[in-house]
Amino acid sequence: MSSDFANPQPSRWEKGASRSLASTRIFDVRGVEFRHPVRGTRREFVVIDAPDWVNVIALTPDHRLVMVNQFRYGTDAFSWEIPGGVIDAGEDPVSAGVRELLEETGYGGQRARLLGSVNPNPAIMNNRCHLVLVEEVVRTAEQEWDTDEEILVASPSVDEVYGLAHSGRITHSLVLNGLLLFAPVWDRIKSGRA
Amino acid sequence: MSSDFANPQPSRWEKGASRSLASTRIFDVRGVEFRHPVRGTRREFVVIDAPDWVNVIALTPDHRLVMVNQFRYGTDAFSWEIPGGVIDAGEDPVSAGVRELLEETGYGGQRARLLGSVNPNPAIMNNRCHLVLVEEVVRTAEQEWDTDEEILVASPSVDEVYGLAHSGRITHSLVLNGLLLFAPVWDRIKSGRA
Repeated sequence: MSSDFANPQPSRWEKGASRSLASTRIFDVRGVEFRHPVRGTRREFVVIDAPDWVNVIALTPDHRLVMVNQFRYGTDAFSWEIPGGVIDAGEDPVSAGVRELLEETGYGGQRARLLGSVNPNPAIMNNRCHLVLVEEVVRTAEQEWDTDEEILVASPSVDEVYGLAHSGRITHSLVLNGLLLFAPVWDRIKSGRA
Repeated sequence: MSSDFANPQPSRWEKGASRSLASTRIFDVRGVEFRHPVRGTRREFVVIDAPDWVNVIALTPDHRLVMVNQFRYGTDAFSWEIPGGVIDAGEDPVSAGVRELLEETGYGGQRARLLGSVNPNPAIMNNRCHLVLVEEVVRTAEQEWDTDEEILVASPSVDEVYGLAHSGRITHSLVLNGLLLFAPVWDRIKSGRA
């Protein structure tokens, strides 16, 4: 690998004061001043200040994934996704994933663990999204929707889900991240090495 | 596949009036009223109104990917990414990808085409991100940075890039989406079927 990967050369801007541009129920928008250490330039950049999120790959004993469909207000359309939501203050990502899975689908399982974490958009957002795997999931409870939630649950096979991702029928960026991070684990499970 | 995948049952909320909550250089934040068709509930949801984005998988003749590293103000950190940016008004996604690739890295190539399109966050954003593949790329020009840009370019092998993605050293959600959509194409190229 190129040594450039270890030692990026662009300058590290210095973070300064910030001010609120908007405050909403689910995120704040802040203007944050950064100073370029060489040029001395001071510029205000817009940052969406949001809590961390979690999305859950929930694998059934017969190798299906628990998927949810709901109406999404951003796109004004329905969206097939893996379960997920906002991590509560003080809650760890794996516990949050297990909680959201149970609330949205009624499923619970075993060996819940972190697959990895991503940045939804490092250019304009400061939060992370954690991708959690739960295995051996079975339906153990009723769904418990939040206000305004209505969630349809389905459980296509893992290979069907990857087909939906590659054919453009699953389009939620963070859901696709979960499928990317799960791919090596799924290869091991399919080949009996897990 | 479950027939549920064709016929989601949750209600389709009806979109109503909206109002501006904040306006910034790179996106607006709007409060959008939706009405539930059965319950009759009216609720205002927060939507980030942003232009569409493009990210580019740029494959060299010796099967390396053109990667860029830059300081990102959202996360206050450096980030390894594929080239990309905002699509101009009236610009098609493939042209925008070719333009961003050239501006950020000085590379140009052949057979530029759309790999697929994703929703950065259907819950709170209304825009799409298009993932474009350009093959046979070579450095043909100098970089042309926008104001405040400083971009380091590197070209690790495709397999190294997937290793960086799976080990958590590439964390930009939309960049990882490009790698997911490129995976089947890469499989065909590696096996000589492309």
